[in-house]
Amino acid sequence: MRLRADLLPQENLSYPDVVLVVDVIRATTTATAFLEAGAASLYLTADLDSARAFRDTDVVLAGEEGGLKPSGFDYGNSPREAREAPVGGKIVVMSTTNGTRTAHLAARSAKYVLLASLYNAHAAARLAHQLATEEVAILCAGKEGRIGLDDVYTAGVLAEFLQIMGSYELEDGALTALTTRRAYPDPLEPLHLSAAAQALRQVGLEADVPFCGQIAVSSAVAVLEGRVGEALIFQRAHWAAQAPAS
Amino acid sequence: MRLRADLLPQENLSYPDVVLVVDVIRATTTATAFLEAGAASLYLTADLDSARAFRDTDVVLAGEEGGLKPSGFDYGNSPREAREAPVGGKIVVMSTTNGTRTAHLAARSAKYVLLASLYNAHAAARLAHQLATEEVAILCAGKEGRIGLDDVYTAGVLAEFLQIMGSYELEDGALTALTTRRAYPDPLEPLHLSAAAQALRQVGLEADVPFCGQIAVSSAVAVLEGRVGEALIFQRAHWAAQAPAS
Repeated sequence: MRLRADLLPQENLSYPDVVLVVDVIRATTTATAFLEAGAASLYLTADLDSARAFRDTDVVLAGEEGGLKPSGFDYGNSPREAREAPVGGKIVVMSTTNGTRTAHLAARSAKYVLLASLYNAHAAARLAHQLATEEVAILCAGKEGRIGLDDVYTAGVLAEFLQIMGSYELEDGALTALTTRRAYPDPLEPLHLSAAAQALRQVGLEADVPFCGQIAVSSAVAVLEGRVGEALIFQRAHWAAQAPAS
Repeated sequence: MRLRADLLPQENLSYPDVVLVVDVIRATTTATAFLEAGAASLYLTADLDSARAFRDTDVVLAGEEGGLKPSGFDYGNSPREAREAPVGGKIVVMSTTNGTRTAHLAARSAKYVLLASLYNAHAAARLAHQLATEEVAILCAGKEGRIGLDDVYTAGVLAEFLQIMGSYELEDGALTALTTRRAYPDPLEPLHLSAAAQALRQVGLEADVPFCGQIAVSSAVAVLEGRVGEALIFQRAHWAAQAPAS
């Protein structure tokens, strides 16, 4: 089995099998937190206007623009807020700058798309390992076209968990991510150093960083189940707790 | 001063100041080796046909396609061969898959474009430090849209040399590159692990890898001096040996 980490989304890349999309500060952490809070589905739209078009009863809008809640949205992109949000049984429509766009790129070609973070790292790696037949790819969202140390570190944590479960052939990206993971015993260090954390600090949301730095707290994994128009529909996988395949 | 490492070329990125282009296996190592062998100028073209259009007396063509010498070319992309080539006073026109294209991307916006490798790492870092007024960017070529462990490692070596010369503010890419550099005391280890080295092995050119792994052997640095048509003209910088600025 191949283990691949693409540290930035690239238009020309395609994915034959399983993709773990990572935008740890904050989109994929927040998505997982909404599932923990009981959301029935997550709709990921590629832009804010597409999200607004879904407004309805039983629908809440969440996302960010410049790190802050967009106008007319119910929630920002804060995982702390998402975890406590009264979204039981509701559809959460999300749009963020880097994470949801990266999920759309993965969805063009992959067989399975999962949203991964440190918060659900164990469960996401286990599910990826169960589903994969040839390759697990970790696709980091980065930040406006540049790699994020937070995402590279998270890719390394996921790669480490995958290596515990099975025998993987690593390529250059996965080796770089693993090296980065091993260089920082405390996950809060690379997270705090990242450009994503610096941007949060500028808008007073740095308290989201420690939430994003919790490792393997949640067993919820959002998996792509279909589409409605251009939006990707993710739901909580109900089989991540099974025993891993060989 | 900012120190930035972009681990993959991205169409939408721009560079305000100095760029060190890195394609250590093999384009930027080979370019430096041609300068060591006495080449008067290097013309970097974005594709093979543009290179062929320069054929003339006092011009030699060098490059690769699938790792091998393209038809009608005088040389492949081997730094061993380049170092021994009788190119004194000649123009070497180069076209390679990843490296020369990355140089073109940098040349769109940067004030200074330098070709860097392990082979000239000291001299390239020193010249970049002398020239820069706000930012040194290390731009890795990668391999067909995916990062190369060899290039990330080289970026880390350059970043380390730059940090010795002055005080730099590091972003996520530079931190990742430095971490990778520190994880491998022996440069041959990441180079041999890289996809670029694996591709060379498949065409029987693995003996180029140890050449590319020599650190700071050459004081030659190719610096962008102008253009002829679409081709970038690089010449050997004659001031790299000066004392570094503060």
